[in-house]
Amino acid sequence: MNAEDIQGFFADRDQLDMADYLELEYYLECIGDIRTSLAHFCSEQSTAQWRRVGFEEDFRESYGAKVVRWQVLEELAELSYPVDHAAAGKIHACRVTIAHPHGNFGPKIPNLITAVCGEGTYFTSGIPLVKLLDISFPDNYLARFEGPKFGIEGIRDMLGAYGRPIFFGVVKPNIGLQPEHFSEIAYQSWLGGLDIAKDDEMLADVKWSTTRRRTELLGKARIKAEELTGDKKIYLANITDEVDRMIELHDVAVANGANALLLNTMPVGLSAVRMLRKHTKVPLIGHFPFIAAFSRLEKYGVHTKVITKLQRLAGLDAIIMPGFGNRMMTPEQEVRENIEQCLNEMGSLKRSLPVPGGSDSALTLESVYRKVGSVDFGFVPGRGIFGHPMGPKAGASSIRQAWDAIEKGQTLDSYAETHPELMVMLDK
Amino acid sequence: MNAEDIQGFFADRDQLDMADYLELEYYLECIGDIRTSLAHFCSEQSTAQWRRVGFEEDFRESYGAKVVRWQVLEELAELSYPVDHAAAGKIHACRVTIAHPHGNFGPKIPNLITAVCGEGTYFTSGIPLVKLLDISFPDNYLARFEGPKFGIEGIRDMLGAYGRPIFFGVVKPNIGLQPEHFSEIAYQSWLGGLDIAKDDEMLADVKWSTTRRRTELLGKARIKAEELTGDKKIYLANITDEVDRMIELHDVAVANGANALLLNTMPVGLSAVRMLRKHTKVPLIGHFPFIAAFSRLEKYGVHTKVITKLQRLAGLDAIIMPGFGNRMMTPEQEVRENIEQCLNEMGSLKRSLPVPGGSDSALTLESVYRKVGSVDFGFVPGRGIFGHPMGPKAGASSIRQAWDAIEKGQTLDSYAETHPELMVMLDK
Repeated sequence: MNAEDIQGFFADRDQLDMADYLELEYYLECIGDIRTSLAHFCSEQSTAQWRRVGFEEDFRESYGAKVVRWQVLEELAELSYPVDHAAAGKIHACRVTIAHPHGNFGPKIPNLITAVCGEGTYFTSGIPLVKLLDISFPDNYLARFEGPKFGIEGIRDMLGAYGRPIFFGVVKPNIGLQPEHFSEIAYQSWLGGLDIAKDDEMLADVKWSTTRRRTELLGKARIKAEELTGDKKIYLANITDEVDRMIELHDVAVANGANALLLNTMPVGLSAVRMLRKHTKVPLIGHFPFIAAFSRLEKYGVHTKVITKLQRLAGLDAIIMPGFGNRMMTPEQEVRENIEQCLNEMGSLKRSLPVPGGSDSALTLESVYRKVGSVDFGFVPGRGIFGHPMGPKAGASSIRQAWDAIEKGQTLDSYAETHPELMVMLDK
Repeated sequence: MNAEDIQGFFADRDQLDMADYLELEYYLECIGDIRTSLAHFCSEQSTAQWRRVGFEEDFRESYGAKVVRWQVLEELAELSYPVDHAAAGKIHACRVTIAHPHGNFGPKIPNLITAVCGEGTYFTSGIPLVKLLDISFPDNYLARFEGPKFGIEGIRDMLGAYGRPIFFGVVKPNIGLQPEHFSEIAYQSWLGGLDIAKDDEMLADVKWSTTRRRTELLGKARIKAEELTGDKKIYLANITDEVDRMIELHDVAVANGANALLLNTMPVGLSAVRMLRKHTKVPLIGHFPFIAAFSRLEKYGVHTKVITKLQRLAGLDAIIMPGFGNRMMTPEQEVRENIEQCLNEMGSLKRSLPVPGGSDSALTLESVYRKVGSVDFGFVPGRGIFGHPMGPKAGASSIRQAWDAIEKGQTLDSYAETHPELMVMLDK
């Protein structure tokens, strides 16, 4: 590209009608001339060839991605992570904001992904390392998405649970339980005070525990638990499966009394989530397999914040995400940002319930609550409930007792003195 | 875990019925005791809690993932890439083979992904860095997948093109062309000798060029080109869209004369590809957006080879993948491995046509051909054809001329003396 070609991929933000653009934030490591690399970066993700041969025309004004802001963060002695075939030259870490015309693809998640983290993004000469940090959507674009059907308020209304976190539990053993045993364990956990007993993200419709049989038993157990406790309960059935079976599984599960459904977002695909959102009669809850494969490293891939936004856009009523525990290897600030993306204003989309998870128990509840900074979250232990030495009912009770202690301003130690289920967790 | 617990996640391969297991190859960076970390790694991806509280049982024999082989590659002074909250301790780079029981999830792509690169894989204490390198499937598992409907032979039969590569071209300008202009350009490229004129992966069903209108014009232009040249041609229409629109777009496009369809595999989801595979009347061709976000780094994420296998399993007849050019930043060996995954025996699945791409032209054809080592590949220039100074017909001719030179054992230079379209490319 010559200087004029390059200039065509830069713009003054004030001169653009930003209703026509998404704003994309990237971290880049550029080799060689920075402005040239940035122009190629925009070209590759939009109009790679902006005129027909033999015609005087320029498609860039309407269809070109354009750099609207950039800054050099630092010069680097070497790439943060080595990359094969990377060019030679001076290396600069940069942060860049790109205005990308959404008319190039429209309000469609697969095409949006293709534009913002597709071939163009990852295959620009001179830019071997890229992390997509954030996407901002204009309201007219957001208005084309349905978003969550129930949202936090819808889930709270179903449960009659206000002013406190929502208590989930992942039934364990997660793999191998007969449906009858699974049902008994979930039932006990509801009696102990759980709001939502859920399938593990790895347990779906399998021969030894079909969705049909499991939801049949769990639907009945749920109603029994509701009658006995006087509280509303949710059985969250995992219907992650081939996308052409999801609607059928939804119908079977809901007819049998599953009153929320789990989807592994990336494995089924964000677009399949959106498909089910249009059909569903119950809240949809997303789980996070595969996301870490492209988001863990600070300087490469796609930031989890982007995926949280896309999950809300796709219509998930609750989003299970890596939380604060050390096992989750996620910076605290990043967990907080993901929680914010569930709760922030986002056009007229309902709020999703953030569910930061990972090796939780009665012992971690207060710390999670303080870090979240509000009661608008879901808390999702697994072994912390179902590995409780006194059994799953006691496991669930220990969580509710931990919350009661927080509400009453008591320490866990003092509250545990009169609450043996909690005491056992402290003694473990 | 105690020593006995740990031992439950190790097994002698010869003692297992390997028909019940997938074999997973991982690169891991383990902190602390290696066997303990590996046992946790297996536990997290299978039976995290392998018995009910108060019961004498062990779900690991049937449902546990098990280490069947492991080796320490080296001790490291620090992690290859820094990770937040990583534990402290000695670091070892390891290669490990895990037998994972496929009965835990069945022949379903989303559930397979969840098991082999989900929460368990990326969130094991003491294993901050993981790359899934390969998956081997037993034949009984492969037999549950449909695989490509047409495969290489089907595509060759459609075109009557044997004993040579298949020549694709990505119509450019890729974004912004009116359907009438797009059609004219594709038509010219067919006349010049292209087999397959294709939409860019970023061009799909948009207001300014709807699938209906574009396929209507291209279907007619294709037939006209076939009549004029006497050769069969393919118009490859990109129907990447929300998954609940893909069947409808297939029907419209095929009725209008598009005779192959492009899907951006990861953006729509592998499972959506498999859904369309069951319905399609024409070959399905996959493109690679998003894959680099989790595969470029040597020691983290998922190897492209795994995704190539999954794409073939999902039923793609051809797989466009990052090729040999420097812009693609992919080691040569990795490109070769991906080509092999398309062509290798894989149960009774048909072979997919590998299409290694990236900034190709008449000038790179011989080098690509030599590196592939056979004629069973697709060649897919964009600007190398549609940016040709003499226009798209000449651009396509230059590619065919380059192939003719190879077949005749002539150098490009000497062959170009009597072929001006090729000469222009050499002069560029």
